[in-house]
Amino acid sequence: MEVAVAEDPLYQRIAQHYRGAIRSGLMPAGERMPSVRSLQRLHQVSLSTALQACRRLEDEGLLEARPRSGYFVRSLRRAGMQPASEPDLRRAPDPAQYVGIHDRVSDFVARSESRPAVADFGATYAAGSLYPADALRAAALRALRRQPELLVQPAPAAGDLALRTAIARRALDGGMQLTPDDITITHGCIEALNVALRAVAQPGDVIAVESPTYYGLLQVLESLGLRALEIPCSPHTGLSIEALELAFDTHPGIKAVVASPDYNNPLGCVMPDADKARLVALCERRQVPLIEDDTYGALGGSDVPLRALKAWDATGNVIRCVSLRKTIAPGLRLGWVSGGRWQARIHMLKFAQSRANEALPQLTMAEFMASSAYDRHLQRLRRQVKQQRERIAEVIDASFPAGTRLSVPAGGMLLWVELPPGVQAHPLFEAALMRGIRVVPGTLFSNTSRFERFVRFSCGHPVTREAEQALRDLGAMAAAQV
Amino acid sequence: MEVAVAEDPLYQRIAQHYRGAIRSGLMPAGERMPSVRSLQRLHQVSLSTALQACRRLEDEGLLEARPRSGYFVRSLRRAGMQPASEPDLRRAPDPAQYVGIHDRVSDFVARSESRPAVADFGATYAAGSLYPADALRAAALRALRRQPELLVQPAPAAGDLALRTAIARRALDGGMQLTPDDITITHGCIEALNVALRAVAQPGDVIAVESPTYYGLLQVLESLGLRALEIPCSPHTGLSIEALELAFDTHPGIKAVVASPDYNNPLGCVMPDADKARLVALCERRQVPLIEDDTYGALGGSDVPLRALKAWDATGNVIRCVSLRKTIAPGLRLGWVSGGRWQARIHMLKFAQSRANEALPQLTMAEFMASSAYDRHLQRLRRQVKQQRERIAEVIDASFPAGTRLSVPAGGMLLWVELPPGVQAHPLFEAALMRGIRVVPGTLFSNTSRFERFVRFSCGHPVTREAEQALRDLGAMAAAQV
Repeated sequence: MEVAVAEDPLYQRIAQHYRGAIRSGLMPAGERMPSVRSLQRLHQVSLSTALQACRRLEDEGLLEARPRSGYFVRSLRRAGMQPASEPDLRRAPDPAQYVGIHDRVSDFVARSESRPAVADFGATYAAGSLYPADALRAAALRALRRQPELLVQPAPAAGDLALRTAIARRALDGGMQLTPDDITITHGCIEALNVALRAVAQPGDVIAVESPTYYGLLQVLESLGLRALEIPCSPHTGLSIEALELAFDTHPGIKAVVASPDYNNPLGCVMPDADKARLVALCERRQVPLIEDDTYGALGGSDVPLRALKAWDATGNVIRCVSLRKTIAPGLRLGWVSGGRWQARIHMLKFAQSRANEALPQLTMAEFMASSAYDRHLQRLRRQVKQQRERIAEVIDASFPAGTRLSVPAGGMLLWVELPPGVQAHPLFEAALMRGIRVVPGTLFSNTSRFERFVRFSCGHPVTREAEQALRDLGAMAAAQV
Repeated sequence: MEVAVAEDPLYQRIAQHYRGAIRSGLMPAGERMPSVRSLQRLHQVSLSTALQACRRLEDEGLLEARPRSGYFVRSLRRAGMQPASEPDLRRAPDPAQYVGIHDRVSDFVARSESRPAVADFGATYAAGSLYPADALRAAALRALRRQPELLVQPAPAAGDLALRTAIARRALDGGMQLTPDDITITHGCIEALNVALRAVAQPGDVIAVESPTYYGLLQVLESLGLRALEIPCSPHTGLSIEALELAFDTHPGIKAVVASPDYNNPLGCVMPDADKARLVALCERRQVPLIEDDTYGALGGSDVPLRALKAWDATGNVIRCVSLRKTIAPGLRLGWVSGGRWQARIHMLKFAQSRANEALPQLTMAEFMASSAYDRHLQRLRRQVKQQRERIAEVIDASFPAGTRLSVPAGGMLLWVELPPGVQAHPLFEAALMRGIRVVPGTLFSNTSRFERFVRFSCGHPVTREAEQALRDLGAMAAAQV
């Protein structure tokens, strides 16, 4: 959140006041701005100061002047931008394009953290202020007071029952019927994916993944000696079921499919229900386990929960892996897995790999998830991230070179931007880094060179003036490459 | 999992969804059913369909309508009795359910926990009262007060610097010179062993281990597809260096050696310094990485710290894995690994497997380990466990049949008891369990049948009168087998 500091000129303070209201949606597009004379009176400033404030907001694209009517909140300018382009399904996946990813990812992480961020569009979680710090802390304090020996007693081997119950209860809304016994608590979704993959595949096996996909998944596959077969995705509907079916025919050894159907990373799109049903049925028919990665599903565009792939699972063929970090508490390393037919094996692998999670974070999370504060938090986070997402899209629209393509998803935290031909993401990432601007180049999201013109923007942080300027700078850097 | 099929009327599908949740207890008696309007929104159906679903469940006796409040889960009319369970159709024989040695271990764990312990000689940690609950809790509370956003901010990727510094400082006393950068924090020693083994070996590889050895290690090896080669141990000096050298000659493919030289599990013995130096030199000469597992080293018989294998390591060939749980805080899942030449790869594998540990437990542990309270705690724990160890040995000596053998170690938490010929550990374990007495049969500590006459006793709990009686009962049960 921006805070007005005392030495700001008066007009900046007034501009800031209304900027917040416009961005928060309190003053929606089309609404009339108070007249200059009203501003003069309301804020006890001179006419020229009031006018200066309005002009400032006009410069920022937030207001527009209409002759003889005054200033109005401007509507979003995304109308002109092309939606992201569809992939070429005829391009068969080629194992020869495999180049490995560890070095790239760790180089990327090290370089990203090498200097402080002026504007962070790289992180996959939101700003701390958007999470329920107080409620979680209160729950942790209560647990420590209630159980003075909590830190010196071993945690239950199966994971905390209250947390597994709260999770099962919440999963009902996503169309699933799970019991606490169907759920294994893990150290984040990443551990869930590790044990899910280890349960169904051996080193050397081929795993079908979305393309582009979360680079962390590519790294997990590589670290386990598994090979990724990248299946094209539509930026609007996700994994292409046709392309997957084709891959099953041409690569009979595929041992699992990993898909993230809801606001996936990096595309941000949602797979339609009909495709979800087809995907589950296809994997079932082919007897290939389907691993569902749900990281942002709870950050939907409406209050109607999305239906998980697991909701269509009649035979236990879907292994559901869920992150609780990015939607609830980035400081708690908690996720869960529901392993269907593989549940016993997954539970064993989790036990052999890192034993049960500690009790304190589980008790903290259980209390929060079982309360209505959880619902209120999600509503607020969804609303806030939506505003940020749309504002970032607007500024990109206004600042990036012609030919930039972008579809703005209805939920989640990410924007996947296609740069015009001739503009490369990696040099842009490097140049941005020099100015303390963090973005993630598309090259990280594939073992192929398919996404050299893409950049992923995370919309987790409030869009400050510095952030807007950073986006404009990025646009200028991109334009300079054309 | 119950599944709604496509031709079901909508209301039946909704009814089915909640029927399962009510029957499984996920929605307990008295819980409010989502309102008809919520159902309408959640399931995207008409108001009348939602109402019909509720009425259907009301007809079945699962819900009751309360005037002006909506529907509530009815308390079941067969007070106390659970409905008969349905057969689990997913449990057909299936390679998906392969769990291996884990069957034995989890069967053992489940059976051990199946009834409350009257006397617990099974746990590998001490009674809660022997750990610094108050100091740890105070440190955790301070961390939560000092950093109100701790639970909503991501932890540093490399692990908490203060904790790594405290560990490096303490490692000096064990003869090692480590910097914080040489240390990766893990989810307990078990995760440290996992990433150490994954760093140096591939599935199918042979790993030399002590025999007998901690069953958790055998389980880790199996879960990683590694094969254990059991090297004989002296119950007084641990791993036989001669036997290991012979194994190197006869099994040229050995990819790593795992050894626990200090108060190891289950033998409880300490490898003499001369043997430690020979072991490190031998592995170095053979170019085979040596993985050191230190769980009880801090519980020495004197205040002079034992020298770690790592202290003899001049070339980075020793990977040191340490547990902080059993000596400091069984409720914190903390351990660490110092990977020598493999440090970068180990750090990457830890990142890919479960990311960085949470901040709160690390801050808590860091404060404690950096303080003199840590030294005082260890002195007290050593003294207390020594008393318990010696008292248990005395009672065994007085109560067990002639021919029982036992060497009492100077430190650690374990006693390894050899029963006389004709007495089998497993039936003794089973008979003891029926009386609520927990011990661990020797059969768990090897993939061979070499230790059928051995029992491991943990000395972590105060020796109450009930515990003494339990030992005498065990002696009588053993005698009855002769």
